[in-house]
Amino acid sequence: MSDTPPPPPPSSPQPPIPPEQLRAGAHWLTGDGADNDVVISSRVRIARNIDGFAFLSKADNDLRQQTLELCRDRLMHCGLGRRTLWLDVHKTPTLDRTLLVERHLMSKEHARGDAPRGLLVSLPDEHLSVMVNEEDHLRLQSLRAGLALSQAWAQVNDADDRLDGLIDFAFSPRFGYLTSCPTNVGCGVRMSVMLHLPALRLTNDIDKAKRAARDMNLTVRGFYGEGSEATGDLYQISNQTTLGKSEAALLNDIEADIVPDIVRAEREARRRIMDVRRRFMEDLCWRALGTLRAARLLAPEEALTMLSLTRLGALLGILPNLSEATVNQLMLMVQPAHLQRITGQDMDQQRRREARADLVRARLAGAHG
Amino acid sequence: MSDTPPPPPPSSPQPPIPPEQLRAGAHWLTGDGADNDVVISSRVRIARNIDGFAFLSKADNDLRQQTLELCRDRLMHCGLGRRTLWLDVHKTPTLDRTLLVERHLMSKEHARGDAPRGLLVSLPDEHLSVMVNEEDHLRLQSLRAGLALSQAWAQVNDADDRLDGLIDFAFSPRFGYLTSCPTNVGCGVRMSVMLHLPALRLTNDIDKAKRAARDMNLTVRGFYGEGSEATGDLYQISNQTTLGKSEAALLNDIEADIVPDIVRAEREARRRIMDVRRRFMEDLCWRALGTLRAARLLAPEEALTMLSLTRLGALLGILPNLSEATVNQLMLMVQPAHLQRITGQDMDQQRRREARADLVRARLAGAHG
Repeated sequence: MSDTPPPPPPSSPQPPIPPEQLRAGAHWLTGDGADNDVVISSRVRIARNIDGFAFLSKADNDLRQQTLELCRDRLMHCGLGRRTLWLDVHKTPTLDRTLLVERHLMSKEHARGDAPRGLLVSLPDEHLSVMVNEEDHLRLQSLRAGLALSQAWAQVNDADDRLDGLIDFAFSPRFGYLTSCPTNVGCGVRMSVMLHLPALRLTNDIDKAKRAARDMNLTVRGFYGEGSEATGDLYQISNQTTLGKSEAALLNDIEADIVPDIVRAEREARRRIMDVRRRFMEDLCWRALGTLRAARLLAPEEALTMLSLTRLGALLGILPNLSEATVNQLMLMVQPAHLQRITGQDMDQQRRREARADLVRARLAGAHG
Repeated sequence: MSDTPPPPPPSSPQPPIPPEQLRAGAHWLTGDGADNDVVISSRVRIARNIDGFAFLSKADNDLRQQTLELCRDRLMHCGLGRRTLWLDVHKTPTLDRTLLVERHLMSKEHARGDAPRGLLVSLPDEHLSVMVNEEDHLRLQSLRAGLALSQAWAQVNDADDRLDGLIDFAFSPRFGYLTSCPTNVGCGVRMSVMLHLPALRLTNDIDKAKRAARDMNLTVRGFYGEGSEATGDLYQISNQTTLGKSEAALLNDIEADIVPDIVRAEREARRRIMDVRRRFMEDLCWRALGTLRAARLLAPEEALTMLSLTRLGALLGILPNLSEATVNQLMLMVQPAHLQRITGQDMDQQRRREARADLVRARLAGAHG
């Protein structure tokens, strides 16, 4: 970490986030959690709006500022945890905004623009985060390692309850919680699970898993990139609509039904490949580690692809001296803003490719059999 | 090397070549020789036929056998060197024939078929080889490391002189030496140089070099494979016709004119890339070594491609602990027959890919910076 981060641009008077604030965080990357061989993380997000305040699509900056101040005050006083980080996102340097997006603490949309908006993050675990003035007045998120939707749901539910006594939420007896986007109306819950499915891709069974999820009205998409193939074999399963479905039903659909099915299928595919094509798998995983340990230039997509294969290699015992936590952390560190925070340098794309390769080599130096 | 080579098939009653016979050989692979940063090897081949004996295209097996015996007798008694290896190629096990082709001691065509044919090789250097009953009664070849056409020419010329006293060669005062294929009529000389041109390929200047050679009636082709891109960036430049051109003129064209030009261009391209795109080159060469040191499955084409880049890396000082001789030797050892001789096992393609990867990893285990 650097002692001298680049000075914030004139329009962003807020100093950068002190590196130590986020250093210990991102518990969801530790590789702990249930079914962590396949499930990277679980996330629950709810949307709330304040009764009597216009939806943000109709709010001017004055109203946004009022909303921001109200929410900030209530969030600070509802007992959300011993330590929290508060940011006026519109005053935060660009690099820090990107850093928070890379850590999945806020959305890309929330990072853009200069209208008043805020973010609260629980420290040091970073489990809970609250976006103020994103698409809704409040979006509460809990992000956990492994398959842990129930715990994530319990956490946002608890935060919701605490705020409910301090803020009047816009609510209709007929539709439930009112949100700016109709797909969130109802219980206003979005649940998602990030899955690592390299073996299902290799055995060409990934489409079967996608179909099964879609048959339950769930969305499946590559976690990075919008192409047909998911970079790093990371897939996100989430609900599309909330209207007419209870949280309990949604939770059950995802956590107790479709995800365990996909986890079983991925494990079975891994076993099958190792039985039938062990050499092929060894070749694939060792080459990925070999590339990461040799490259002098590394683009983020390739880094993720290779890290995905080394993660699989570590889990299958092919790469015995490589920890899953190291790989998970590298998946975060290779991203542009993290890379620049770690090296303490503001870099263009070419320099980032160099720095990324140097960082990955250094971290994986001892990681061979 | 194995103590128990596979038994020869019934149609090949000759025992396999004792491994120790060829172990020390292939001096041309040592990386010695003039301009060896670019010129891998030089080769001169002459074709001779015996006066009064029908060309082989019209010869039955009896006549071939007569020719074989005559040539063998004369070759054994003309003082070609202290130690030679003689093989009745038609009785030699298939694997050994392939081995000799891979060592460039005889042609693929000579390896095929069961009609009487022979091969003489000088030991331990393997500089000189003589094919009997290939397309012509006799084809004498000298193969040397680096740019050494003059030496190669002197050696075949000397062998030619020695035989000339013992055999009447078919000769026409008007056309010169008569050969079965008209492109060899005249002085009957084929000269060729194997060049390693990775930088000219990377700077897209390879076509310029090819055109310059073609303008001088020389052929340029990939040394391995017939595709547009030469596997391993190895290119062979050779004369197409010999009629109407003296040996001295041919030698001059290749050794004193076109090859020095191409060598200069390749060196200049290497310098330019290192000046302008050093990181790119480091990335390329390190990745190649990383792949070779990590792979558990390795096809011959990929092995050659990666070895070519590590050779370049060694020459440019990017891979400091890697010797050019190691790379050159691996280029030979990764080929199917050599691989099977080294491991002592008869293997199908899949097993060879495994054994090739294992061999390369073992040989390059210490070869990193």
